[in-house]
Amino acid sequence: MTQHSDLLEPLRRGEHRALGRAISWMENGHPGARGLMARLWPHLGRASVIGITGSPGAGKSTLTDRLARALRAEGQRVGILAVDPTSPFSGGAILGDRIRMQRIAADPGIFIRSMATRGALGGLARATQDAIDLLDAAGFDTILVETVGVGQDEVDVVSCVQTCCVVLVPGMGDEIQAIKAGIMEVADLFVINKADRDGADQVERELEAMKSLAMPSGWDPPVLRTVAQQGEGVAELLAQVREHERWLRAHGGLARKAKERARLRFESLLAEAALRRAKQQAGPDRVEALVQGIADRALDPYTAVSEILGEV
Amino acid sequence: MTQHSDLLEPLRRGEHRALGRAISWMENGHPGARGLMARLWPHLGRASVIGITGSPGAGKSTLTDRLARALRAEGQRVGILAVDPTSPFSGGAILGDRIRMQRIAADPGIFIRSMATRGALGGLARATQDAIDLLDAAGFDTILVETVGVGQDEVDVVSCVQTCCVVLVPGMGDEIQAIKAGIMEVADLFVINKADRDGADQVERELEAMKSLAMPSGWDPPVLRTVAQQGEGVAELLAQVREHERWLRAHGGLARKAKERARLRFESLLAEAALRRAKQQAGPDRVEALVQGIADRALDPYTAVSEILGEV
Repeated sequence: MTQHSDLLEPLRRGEHRALGRAISWMENGHPGARGLMARLWPHLGRASVIGITGSPGAGKSTLTDRLARALRAEGQRVGILAVDPTSPFSGGAILGDRIRMQRIAADPGIFIRSMATRGALGGLARATQDAIDLLDAAGFDTILVETVGVGQDEVDVVSCVQTCCVVLVPGMGDEIQAIKAGIMEVADLFVINKADRDGADQVERELEAMKSLAMPSGWDPPVLRTVAQQGEGVAELLAQVREHERWLRAHGGLARKAKERARLRFESLLAEAALRRAKQQAGPDRVEALVQGIADRALDPYTAVSEILGEV
Repeated sequence: MTQHSDLLEPLRRGEHRALGRAISWMENGHPGARGLMARLWPHLGRASVIGITGSPGAGKSTLTDRLARALRAEGQRVGILAVDPTSPFSGGAILGDRIRMQRIAADPGIFIRSMATRGALGGLARATQDAIDLLDAAGFDTILVETVGVGQDEVDVVSCVQTCCVVLVPGMGDEIQAIKAGIMEVADLFVINKADRDGADQVERELEAMKSLAMPSGWDPPVLRTVAQQGEGVAELLAQVREHERWLRAHGGLARKAKERARLRFESLLAEAALRRAKQQAGPDRVEALVQGIADRALDPYTAVSEILGEV
């Protein structure tokens, strides 16, 4: 059996196979996962982590692809984590897109992983965090995380990146509402993609109106325009991402984000471990009997939980 | 302080105020919540629970509104839970829609609640489950659950309804992909809404092609067409929902779904309780010190969790 010590060196050297394997270890709760993370932990926190968030069809993958190429042109090593199941990076979307995206996968300076698989032990947010850390440990300079940005898990993912870019397209009135309701508070940058389409001005006006209602946090999220398909606006976007990173650094934001991320990480792992332990202590037969009792209405779930935890 | 015994009778009579309060109790972890659920549990399992799942803009709320009215016309009492933050039922969407939707809120036979608030203790899925149970206990005949259907929490919600209707609209190629990747396995019915638009035939062809690749489960999800704005196809949709319910009943599906739901319920409550207990035992200062240690890279989160749980 592979030990964590066997993976450690190839992973630190950035070998793709070791990296893929380590991510799977984390997802599946492999016995070596914990030891590996403990060994890597002191070396983490070097990479820039950028979130690209928006609805399917907003052009997130194309934008991610363009950003990755721009960073590669600077000599950076780039990791891409696709949390969106409709992303071409996850094997979703139409075939043409998929082939185009996967072209960059041939570049050894780029590592792509789909995090769209449901049912990862401990949930999507935890699995994505682990993958970010492993890419960081493997020496990737920038990690691009593509997410849909809807749902609690998604928000947990997004709240942990350094700079979150929210991508919109002209002509999607409902989208603005979704942002208001959900991820307004985590947006560091707004990107109006497909900005050559009609309606870009209106989206910008709506965004500016929305921003004027938000609580001032010291950082005023800029609104940028891109046409990712043509690469337009990508350099400006990258410049603004860096401006935001400088701002974070100057205002203690990096330490604050690191602490937020540490808290989320700790709590989700603790919940997972505590659940596992409680189930082990009870044994599978007892758990099964309780579940059946709940289904049969003989027992309510709160009482069942109390029985397992011995709190009655 | 209100005791659970004070809420029990008004709730069972279906009083809206008591119901709203009980849902808030569950969301906030009120001390009376557990006792209330224990008292109600033997009386649950009577209501039909229908999921209406799809992207913002697919017309889920209009469809939900129409279904609610049709059920009311039969004399049923109807609960509506909006898990989608962009839903007019959640206060999202454009004002006109919101006013139109809220018109039905004046009907005492309809109870509407937005479950879109993030940060409910134990997550969205648990809070929604509790609300379904409370509506059931309050004698509501049918409960309509409107969700976006993306993200793990969402899938947890959807997997627990009796009949899940996935709503699509013509001209959204990406949507089909999202379904493939995410909720194909939980769709009991497909609804092509806004079916008077161009492209309905194509969506139907894609759905049929997709279905032909799916594992046969005994139930073949029908593809229906509606124009919810005009009420077209709503009666047929309701008829198919009932056909599915009959099928479930005849094939042990209701018992199977009840057990699935019991398991999810039990596991999420157990995780939550185990986490709470572990944090209490450690105390806030110790938790804070561990989180800071993780953020400072002095300690990895796996080791921190082991320390708390005394598993080192």
